[in-house]
Amino acid sequence: MDRALLQVPERTIPVPTTVSPEAQAVLAMGVTPAPPYPALDDAQGWRKMISSTDAMVLAMFSQAGLTSPDGCKIEDLTVHGVPVFAVTPIDLAPDDERIYLDIHGGAFIVGGGEVCRAIATMAARKVGMRLWSVDYRMPPEHPYPAAVDDCLVVYRALLEEHRPEEIVIGGTSAGGNLTAALILRARDEGFPLPAGAVLLTPALDLTQSGDSFRTNLGVDTVITTSDPGAFLLYAGGHDLKDPYLSPLFGDLSKGFPPTLLASGTRDVLLSDTVRMHRALRAAGVAAELHVLEAAPHGFFRGRTPEDRELDREVRRFIDEYCPVRPRSLE
Amino acid sequence: MDRALLQVPERTIPVPTTVSPEAQAVLAMGVTPAPPYPALDDAQGWRKMISSTDAMVLAMFSQAGLTSPDGCKIEDLTVHGVPVFAVTPIDLAPDDERIYLDIHGGAFIVGGGEVCRAIATMAARKVGMRLWSVDYRMPPEHPYPAAVDDCLVVYRALLEEHRPEEIVIGGTSAGGNLTAALILRARDEGFPLPAGAVLLTPALDLTQSGDSFRTNLGVDTVITTSDPGAFLLYAGGHDLKDPYLSPLFGDLSKGFPPTLLASGTRDVLLSDTVRMHRALRAAGVAAELHVLEAAPHGFFRGRTPEDRELDREVRRFIDEYCPVRPRSLE
Repeated sequence: MDRALLQVPERTIPVPTTVSPEAQAVLAMGVTPAPPYPALDDAQGWRKMISSTDAMVLAMFSQAGLTSPDGCKIEDLTVHGVPVFAVTPIDLAPDDERIYLDIHGGAFIVGGGEVCRAIATMAARKVGMRLWSVDYRMPPEHPYPAAVDDCLVVYRALLEEHRPEEIVIGGTSAGGNLTAALILRARDEGFPLPAGAVLLTPALDLTQSGDSFRTNLGVDTVITTSDPGAFLLYAGGHDLKDPYLSPLFGDLSKGFPPTLLASGTRDVLLSDTVRMHRALRAAGVAAELHVLEAAPHGFFRGRTPEDRELDREVRRFIDEYCPVRPRSLE
Repeated sequence: MDRALLQVPERTIPVPTTVSPEAQAVLAMGVTPAPPYPALDDAQGWRKMISSTDAMVLAMFSQAGLTSPDGCKIEDLTVHGVPVFAVTPIDLAPDDERIYLDIHGGAFIVGGGEVCRAIATMAARKVGMRLWSVDYRMPPEHPYPAAVDDCLVVYRALLEEHRPEEIVIGGTSAGGNLTAALILRARDEGFPLPAGAVLLTPALDLTQSGDSFRTNLGVDTVITTSDPGAFLLYAGGHDLKDPYLSPLFGDLSKGFPPTLLASGTRDVLLSDTVRMHRALRAAGVAAELHVLEAAPHGFFRGRTPEDRELDREVRRFIDEYCPVRPRSLE
């Protein structure tokens, strides 16, 4: 037998006692069932899967009371043709000119429209600041580079009204990928960089070479497949190693803003997260890592003390690298 | 079937392509075979296992060329009855009054004597500063609290010749545990705290409640058992939840120095590491986390680019929190 092939026997893993009762309850719900991906050329199959997934996610958010717009003003904008949800906390300090550019997750295929609106509201509440969320185009109609193009259009529009040091860009999962891709694209095209980046349980290597794609498969209750279907549909025939598709393969030494990265010990994307943390630090970027005990992909669904603790870290990171700088004082 | 019990099927995990060729070679060596622990009351069995393990470790270090004293001066000291290896790099800057108090690892039972001397030399080369390594007493003859007592004796002796802001304490595995335990003990007894702590793949919860004790068992090629024998032998009947035995259960809000923590995605002690990181941050301590892709317990045996990158982080951390402060300038 090849010793290099590690044989890991079948195991039964209990809910850990080392997380909050709320997080234990999330883990005790077990695996999130997911239908297999359609064939790559089955556009109708993808559309059907996408709409039913979006409906399910929206119902889940709604049921958990996460979609309430309480305390926020939400506007539907169209920014140079790209739909954007603009969320403003009603208690925002008048001299706070900062803005968070939120890029939603959803494996590059789901999370648009009403789900994007809900995610934008949740994200604004988390970061406690003015926020724009890009409702970028997605497959099957619009594969890469549509999503990155749309994000760049919106970032350029933000730069017309904001100084770069007032902007933080962030996203979860595929949104973390698009955040990093947008930064590389903006940098390569000569635009100034934002004050910071927030990469939450990000997918940064679409070739799935990260070790945790194997070590945590079956342990992560949220990402339960290594089927690359969604990544391939998004790539639309482009090389998965292209840095705008897999930012881990980008040259990070040519400029990247301070970055907060977070993942969980059960996350299939733990490897992508820690590899990016190391790559950024090797490139001299101020990058910090947070890993939540026993958290699967996406953490604990936003409803546990652990999620709130991570929110506090994100706020602290933003205040550190993107402090309120009243314009009137300059 | 209880959904809360996660059934993880048998798997075959290849050597990842996401680490250096040198790290791939270490992982390709497969599982480190380890004999089962003797019964707790079989002192003779423990002594035999300990001496054969120490001999094996020393041979491994020596074979890898890690034990050479090149560039260092090593002295055997006895500090108030406790044996200490004092290592001084020969190229040390004359105004560098800093000292690293190194606490060796080895599951609380191995790593003493000549192995401690070898670890001290390796550690001094890593941190590039004056270093003392405590050859603390161990089971079966000397269970807890002998090791912590010895470390405290040596730390108190250091405080007689050094300002606390010139001292960093650190250790790997059980040495990380003893580092944290020593800091809690010193604090509780009213001694000033060191400038920083370095906890490398630390065992901080001897009850083994961390989730990665289960999720990474079989994935970690170095710690290959969840047998608590060594921890129980060390505890010698004391409550494993005592903060001096399991520092994760200590009150970290009453003072703890800035801390660097590191682990690997395959490490059985990943949970202990990230839980301590979170607990320290929740207590307001400046704590930073580094996780190496695919690294098992103890990283890649000190011989890969990944290990050297971690060494650079440790040096940078020390320079940040324990900068050279020439006494003559004060």
